[in-house]
Amino acid sequence: MRNILIIGSGKSTSYLIKYLLDKSETEQLQITIGDLNLEAAKKMTQNHKNATAITLDVFDAVSRTAAVKNADIVVSMLPARFHIEVAKDCIAYKKHMVTASYVSPEMEALNDDAIANNLVFMNEIGVDPGIDHMSAMKVIDEIREKGGKVILFESFTGGLVAPESDNNRWNYKFTWNPRNVVVAGQGGAAKFLQEGQFKYIPYQRLFRRTEFLDVEGYGRFEALANRDSLKYQDVYKLDHVKTLYRGTMRRVGFSRAWNAFVQLGMTDDTYTIDDSENMTYRDFVNAFLAYSPTDSVELKFRHALKIDQDDEVWDKFLELDIFSDTKPVGLKKATPAQILQKILMDSWTLAQEDKDMIVMYHKFGYEINGEKHQIDSTMVTLGEDQTYTAMAKTVGLPVAIATIAILNKKITTPGVQIPISKEVYQPILKELEDYDINFKETKVPYLGYNPLNL
Amino acid sequence: MRNILIIGSGKSTSYLIKYLLDKSETEQLQITIGDLNLEAAKKMTQNHKNATAITLDVFDAVSRTAAVKNADIVVSMLPARFHIEVAKDCIAYKKHMVTASYVSPEMEALNDDAIANNLVFMNEIGVDPGIDHMSAMKVIDEIREKGGKVILFESFTGGLVAPESDNNRWNYKFTWNPRNVVVAGQGGAAKFLQEGQFKYIPYQRLFRRTEFLDVEGYGRFEALANRDSLKYQDVYKLDHVKTLYRGTMRRVGFSRAWNAFVQLGMTDDTYTIDDSENMTYRDFVNAFLAYSPTDSVELKFRHALKIDQDDEVWDKFLELDIFSDTKPVGLKKATPAQILQKILMDSWTLAQEDKDMIVMYHKFGYEINGEKHQIDSTMVTLGEDQTYTAMAKTVGLPVAIATIAILNKKITTPGVQIPISKEVYQPILKELEDYDINFKETKVPYLGYNPLNL
Repeated sequence: MRNILIIGSGKSTSYLIKYLLDKSETEQLQITIGDLNLEAAKKMTQNHKNATAITLDVFDAVSRTAAVKNADIVVSMLPARFHIEVAKDCIAYKKHMVTASYVSPEMEALNDDAIANNLVFMNEIGVDPGIDHMSAMKVIDEIREKGGKVILFESFTGGLVAPESDNNRWNYKFTWNPRNVVVAGQGGAAKFLQEGQFKYIPYQRLFRRTEFLDVEGYGRFEALANRDSLKYQDVYKLDHVKTLYRGTMRRVGFSRAWNAFVQLGMTDDTYTIDDSENMTYRDFVNAFLAYSPTDSVELKFRHALKIDQDDEVWDKFLELDIFSDTKPVGLKKATPAQILQKILMDSWTLAQEDKDMIVMYHKFGYEINGEKHQIDSTMVTLGEDQTYTAMAKTVGLPVAIATIAILNKKITTPGVQIPISKEVYQPILKELEDYDINFKETKVPYLGYNPLNL
Repeated sequence: MRNILIIGSGKSTSYLIKYLLDKSETEQLQITIGDLNLEAAKKMTQNHKNATAITLDVFDAVSRTAAVKNADIVVSMLPARFHIEVAKDCIAYKKHMVTASYVSPEMEALNDDAIANNLVFMNEIGVDPGIDHMSAMKVIDEIREKGGKVILFESFTGGLVAPESDNNRWNYKFTWNPRNVVVAGQGGAAKFLQEGQFKYIPYQRLFRRTEFLDVEGYGRFEALANRDSLKYQDVYKLDHVKTLYRGTMRRVGFSRAWNAFVQLGMTDDTYTIDDSENMTYRDFVNAFLAYSPTDSVELKFRHALKIDQDDEVWDKFLELDIFSDTKPVGLKKATPAQILQKILMDSWTLAQEDKDMIVMYHKFGYEINGEKHQIDSTMVTLGEDQTYTAMAKTVGLPVAIATIAILNKKITTPGVQIPISKEVYQPILKELEDYDINFKETKVPYLGYNPLNL
C-alpha cells in the first residue's frame, strides 16, 4: 500500500477524495485525511476501508510531522498561507507534495532542496491556476512544434452558476469564497499587453473595461482583467507575444452593476464602519451618499451614479434589497466589504438544488511563415450537486491524477514546479477527458486588436 | 545667551529663522542651524553674528547628540519621520522640543518621560496642523465660556497661489511638496459626521464630493474632505458635535478636472510603469486607455471620462500638454504618480515673481439656551516672494513664537502636546496679528445641513 496524506477536508476536496478512494484498490492506496475538524475529515472518508481520518493542526509540529512521516506523498488542500510548514516537513522526511495553490516565494525557496532530495513539489494544479496552465501549454507547445511564434495569448476563467440554476438578475451566485468575490480586483492596478503596448487599469475602472466572449451553447460572457497578466510572459516563455491578457468571466451586465459598489466605496475592506451593528441595509448605503434631510437614498444613489430612470440595472439593486430600512446589518465594527458580503449572501447563496459551472476560454494568436492564425479553446464543466461541484471537480481531479502519477513515477522531474511540461499536462489532460473535462479547440481567423494592421 | 538648535533649513524655515535672528539681541538668543547640507544652513544664517551653521545628520548619533547637548531648546523642521531620534536625545539631555508635525505614536510614547523631566514637547504648531488648532480652540473655548454647546465644526485649509499670480486654468501651482499634492487623498476613505450620520468617501469619489466656500475679497473656493475628521472629536473634546468635517481648499473646478487623473489611475504610486523611460506624455496617457490602432488618445480620453465636446475642462488638460507626442517622460521605472508629477511641474512650478497664499475657513455651530448660532472665521495670508512665502510664514512664525515662549517660561505645562490650551494659543495668536495673520470672525445664521429641521 502507498500512503497519501490529504490535509484539509473542505468543499474543494470531494472529488479529490472520491477519485482516490475509487482507485484505492487497483492502485493500492491508503488515504489519511487530516483536518482540524475531525468530524469533517471522518465524513469525507465515507467509512471506506482504505481511508482514515485524523485530527491535524498544521501549527502543531508533533502531530504534523508524525502524519507527514507516515505518508509517501502529501496533498495540502489548505489555503496557500498554511502550506509552508508542511512543505518543510516534506523536505525533512523526503516526501513528494501536491497543492492547488500559487507558488509562494517561501515555497519557491525550497526548489533546490526538493531537487537535491529528488522530490516532486507540484503546485498550481487545480483549475485556475491549474487546468488553465495545462490546456494553454498544450496548444502553445503544438504551435511551437509546427514552427509557429505565439503573438497573442488571452485566457479567461469564470466560476459561475450553472445555466439551469441561473435565476437572479446578476446571473451570479457564490460558488466559492464570497469574500474573495467582494474584494476581487483590489490591491493594485491590472497590467497587461495589447499589440505591444503596456496597459494599466486601476481598481476604480476595472469593472468598466470589460470585453465580451461568446461560448457556443452557453451564450455571452464578459471578462475583466486580472491583476498581473505580464508575469505569464516568463512562465509560458512567450518571447514574441504582443498581446497578453488574463481575465475573470462574469455574465454580461454584472460588472457595470458591480461598479456602483466600487465607486461608492462599499467594497472597501481597510476600515470599519463606526456604528455598523445598529445599521439597516439602507443606512449602510446612505453612509456613502451625501447628507440630506429630505432626499431619498434611492434618488441620491441614482444621482451619484448617474443611473437613468429607465436603466434596467436598477432592478439588480432592488433585487438585493439594499434599500431596506428594516433589515439589520447586525455586524459589530464591520468593514464595508464585510457588510456588503452579508447583504449579497441573502441573495447569492446557492440553494440546495443549485449547480455551479466553470468556464474557461483561451485565445492563441500565432505567426507561421509570415501568416497569422488563431486558435480558440473553450471548456465548460457543470457541477452535479452541492457536494460534487464543478469547482471541486476541476480543482480536485487534476490534483488527484497528479498525485497518483507521481506515486507511479510517471511524473519524475524533481523540484518546485507548476504543470507546464508535457510530462505533466499530457497524461492529466487525457484522463480529465474521461471525466468530461474537455477543451474544444477551434481555428478562427486571426484578428488581434489591430485587424487591418494600421 | 540661550541656545536654540534648528534642525533642517528647507523652504519652510525662512520666517522662523528671520524672526529668531531679529529677536536674538533683545531675547539673548544664539541660533545654531544644522542641516545635512552645510551650504544651505550657512545661507540661512545670513552671516548674522548670533547664528552658526553646522553639518547635522540626524542618523549620526555622535554629531546629533553633541548638537542637542549644546542647546536649550531644539526645533526640528525635518519631515515627521526624522523627529524621533532627536526627541529621544531631548529626553536624555533634558531639552525642550518644538515641531510643526503631527504627533506620531513614537512621539506620543515619550509623553511620560517628557512630563517626568518637566519638558515641553510642542508639536503641530505650524499652519495645518497648527494655526488651525489655535484659531479653532479660541472660538470653541469662547463658546463654552458663555455656556454654549458646539454642535457643528467644519475647518478648511488651502495652500494655493496668490490671486495676482493665479494665471493658469487650474488656478493652482505647487506652493509646497508636489508629491503630496499628487497623492493627496490616497490611503483610505475620508470619514466625517454630518447631522449625526457617519459618512465615508472613497478615494475614487473624493474629488466629486466637494462643496463651495466663499471668502470675502477672495471669491469662491471648493473643499474636499480630509482623510479622518472624526479624530478631532476627541482632540477638541467636541462631545455634542453632530457635524464634524475637515477639508482641503482648491479653486473651483480643480477637483472635477483632477478626478480624470484619479479615475484613469494616473495618480497611483504603488507600481512602476514598465517602459516609462521611453514614453512621451501621450504614451503615458494612452497606457490608461483602451488599445486602438486608429482612435486618437484625445477621443479615447474624452470617451472614457464622458467629457463633452464643449466642456471647458478640456482646456485644462490641453494646457498641461498631456497629449504631447514629443515631450519625453524620461524617468526610469517611474510610478504613474511620479510621471504625472513631472508633467504637472512643467506647468505648475512657481515663476520667480509668483506669490503663494494660505486660506483658512472655520465654521462653528453652537446651541445656547435652545437657540442655534454660527460663527465663521476666515484667514488669508499672502506670500511676499519666493523666500518669504505665506507657507513659510504661517508654519514658521508660530514655531518661532512658541520657542521663545517656552524659553521665557510663558509656556510651562510639560509633556508631548499640541497647541490647544489657552496658555499656548492666546499669546501666539495675539502676536501673529502683528504679522498680519488675522482671523476675521463673523456671526452668521446657523444653517447646518438640515436648516428646516426636517
